[in-house]
Amino acid sequence: MTKIQTQPPRGTRDFYPEELRVRSWLFDHWRTVARSFGFEEVDAPIVEHAELYQRKAGEEIVDQLYHFELHDRHLALRSEFTPSLARMVMARQGGLRWPIRWFSIPQCWRYERMTRGRRREHYQWNMDVWGEAGVGAEAELIAAIFAALDALGLAPADVRMRINSRALLEETLRDRFLADRPDAFAPLCVIIDKLDKIGADAVVDQLADPAGPVGLPRPEAKDAVALLSVSGLEEAERNAPAGSAALAGLRELFDRLDDYGLADRVAFDASVVRGLAYYTGVVFEAFDAEGSLRAICGGGRYDRLLETLGGKPVPAVGFGFGDAVITELLADKGLLPELPRDLDAVVFPFGADERRAGTLLARALRAQGRSVELVLGEVKLKRALADADRSGARQIFLIGPDEQARGVARCRDLTTGEERDEPLP
Amino acid sequence: MTKIQTQPPRGTRDFYPEELRVRSWLFDHWRTVARSFGFEEVDAPIVEHAELYQRKAGEEIVDQLYHFELHDRHLALRSEFTPSLARMVMARQGGLRWPIRWFSIPQCWRYERMTRGRRREHYQWNMDVWGEAGVGAEAELIAAIFAALDALGLAPADVRMRINSRALLEETLRDRFLADRPDAFAPLCVIIDKLDKIGADAVVDQLADPAGPVGLPRPEAKDAVALLSVSGLEEAERNAPAGSAALAGLRELFDRLDDYGLADRVAFDASVVRGLAYYTGVVFEAFDAEGSLRAICGGGRYDRLLETLGGKPVPAVGFGFGDAVITELLADKGLLPELPRDLDAVVFPFGADERRAGTLLARALRAQGRSVELVLGEVKLKRALADADRSGARQIFLIGPDEQARGVARCRDLTTGEERDEPLP
Repeated sequence: MTKIQTQPPRGTRDFYPEELRVRSWLFDHWRTVARSFGFEEVDAPIVEHAELYQRKAGEEIVDQLYHFELHDRHLALRSEFTPSLARMVMARQGGLRWPIRWFSIPQCWRYERMTRGRRREHYQWNMDVWGEAGVGAEAELIAAIFAALDALGLAPADVRMRINSRALLEETLRDRFLADRPDAFAPLCVIIDKLDKIGADAVVDQLADPAGPVGLPRPEAKDAVALLSVSGLEEAERNAPAGSAALAGLRELFDRLDDYGLADRVAFDASVVRGLAYYTGVVFEAFDAEGSLRAICGGGRYDRLLETLGGKPVPAVGFGFGDAVITELLADKGLLPELPRDLDAVVFPFGADERRAGTLLARALRAQGRSVELVLGEVKLKRALADADRSGARQIFLIGPDEQARGVARCRDLTTGEERDEPLP
Repeated sequence: MTKIQTQPPRGTRDFYPEELRVRSWLFDHWRTVARSFGFEEVDAPIVEHAELYQRKAGEEIVDQLYHFELHDRHLALRSEFTPSLARMVMARQGGLRWPIRWFSIPQCWRYERMTRGRRREHYQWNMDVWGEAGVGAEAELIAAIFAALDALGLAPADVRMRINSRALLEETLRDRFLADRPDAFAPLCVIIDKLDKIGADAVVDQLADPAGPVGLPRPEAKDAVALLSVSGLEEAERNAPAGSAALAGLRELFDRLDDYGLADRVAFDASVVRGLAYYTGVVFEAFDAEGSLRAICGGGRYDRLLETLGGKPVPAVGFGFGDAVITELLADKGLLPELPRDLDAVVFPFGADERRAGTLLARALRAQGRSVELVLGEVKLKRALADADRSGARQIFLIGPDEQARGVARCRDLTTGEERDEPLP
């Protein structure tokens, strides 16, 4: 028959043992950090109701949804975890004790044209706090992100966090441009998020497009974009309404981050808005200091998401931290580990007569918690030794006719080459 | 707006923290056992080429494929892991050193009518050996299954393994019925696998259906079904051709399983054939001893799968062990653990003045590897204590104005109620 396609579907990955070890290494760091912050792991189906993602703000992530009709249901592969999380919170809204601190490591899918070496699936570490309105939640999340970056081996100067507040931007724009059209704010943020990618002129064009979702007069679109280049909270304060609550929140957040020892690693950046429609308050993004890669992770406050899905309002904040960019950065820095296979011992019975003794020895070693490869079939000694060396095993136990007669196995340390007899069980 | 559906898609599950803990407990046992046997973890995309599953043997698992057209590609959610594994092996067939021992814990999907309380997704522990033709591979896999059952707390008498060989059945049937139609054997096995579910008469009807994939004359169909009720290897030997290699293999396998101390837990059963078309040799299934549940796990040898996909032949054997039936059995036996949240400490600064001290203490405890929940926002002492108790935390660190003035936190052991002062960092 004709050969099947041996590559996985375009834009997706197989994980052979060496790749799975790197994935597990990364996930273990994420889990360890999340647990050290007192977060509990959750998960939801990778196939979701498509309606969960239907928003009208022109987000890239919604345009790229993997969705399909199946048996009269409109389903989708999750493109992000937050909508599933919102559904889960809503389903138990009466019975939860606030705040909840949940994390997850879902695989997420988006159907992209494969022009930029991007993949169609990635794993994304999520941490979310629900039920806490204060910026203490943001501070904990940002501290967790830096704890993970540190644990992965990056230096403090390798990654910078840019922080802004959509609430501040909204307060600043409201009186000037959006007084009568609050619904235009979310799509405005989605367009502004493209600033780095498409440039200021194109953003102005899209904001001013009369057929678009924002439709600002062109001078006002230009003013809005100009606001994004203010540098520092002091300048932002001059544009903001007097007594701005959003500004006070940002100031408090920076104070808190100082308590975490992060003052040098974070900065206000008025151009950060994030590309998801549902953010309402503080938003943040981490970047490699050289600025050569896409965002490492990002998140923000989304206090109105549950309302838009028909639930009672609950304040919430969270972030997503994908496996793709961090892996690129770690590789660039030479920090991606070469993880050998973790194998304690190989047991090699020379032939059929020693097979039972070999099995009993393997059983005994495994019962002690050791990882043991039992050589199967008829293999030559030379080949067995070469395989054991290649496997990275620490020891090989050799059982030939002579050893069996003496009731021992010959145990060779594969690092030092030293040998000694070990009694057979 | 109208409320979204808060339940996950029909037949799927959310994992709240308490359910995720049970899932992780089960997965950890599977991983520990697989590693103790020297197996390496792998993974593949949950979305696969649909062609990978297109077989013509009338298997339930293929009929129930979650498949869809997307952007001119015919894709499917994986229903089982073996086809992905075969694809991965084939892609690197020239560079692998045999035998390979790989395991995985994929989520698998099948679209079933939801009439029997069955779900549409499950997690399935897979262990496979590729490149070893001898039954030593089967013995290792069956030993690993029992090691997992033991580790999960089941008693030796709780689960029985039934073992057969499709090769033996094929040898026995070949000369009598299938001499000129070897392709009819796989669909014959798929039909025979339904014996317990639909009964002998219905199996005969399907085997004898002239429009079906087997189309045996009715008397021969009856003879074939009669062969399935032979009890014991001795009786099987009378039906098998002289010098049957399959029978010799089965005898060797039972000898090997005796070396693993499993003689009392396994038995020959001529009616076990498994419902997948690709098995060629030994097949096995584990059941609860009371026989009240579906199979806990099952597997077999599939030496010709790679050829049917267009690759070079490689002998292979593996099993799948789902999370559904084992969870039912553990629940029935009272062995499903109540796993509390694993939280070391709660840090509670009474108010804004103590917040910095609380953050510094949480940082210090986390740096020691402890899991620490930092109380956010303004909370009353009574509420903070009740929450800490409810969270299962071992300690709470209280920092009020008095403690802060003295440079300490009041540390209460939540099990004993004992209190002591701990210096603030």
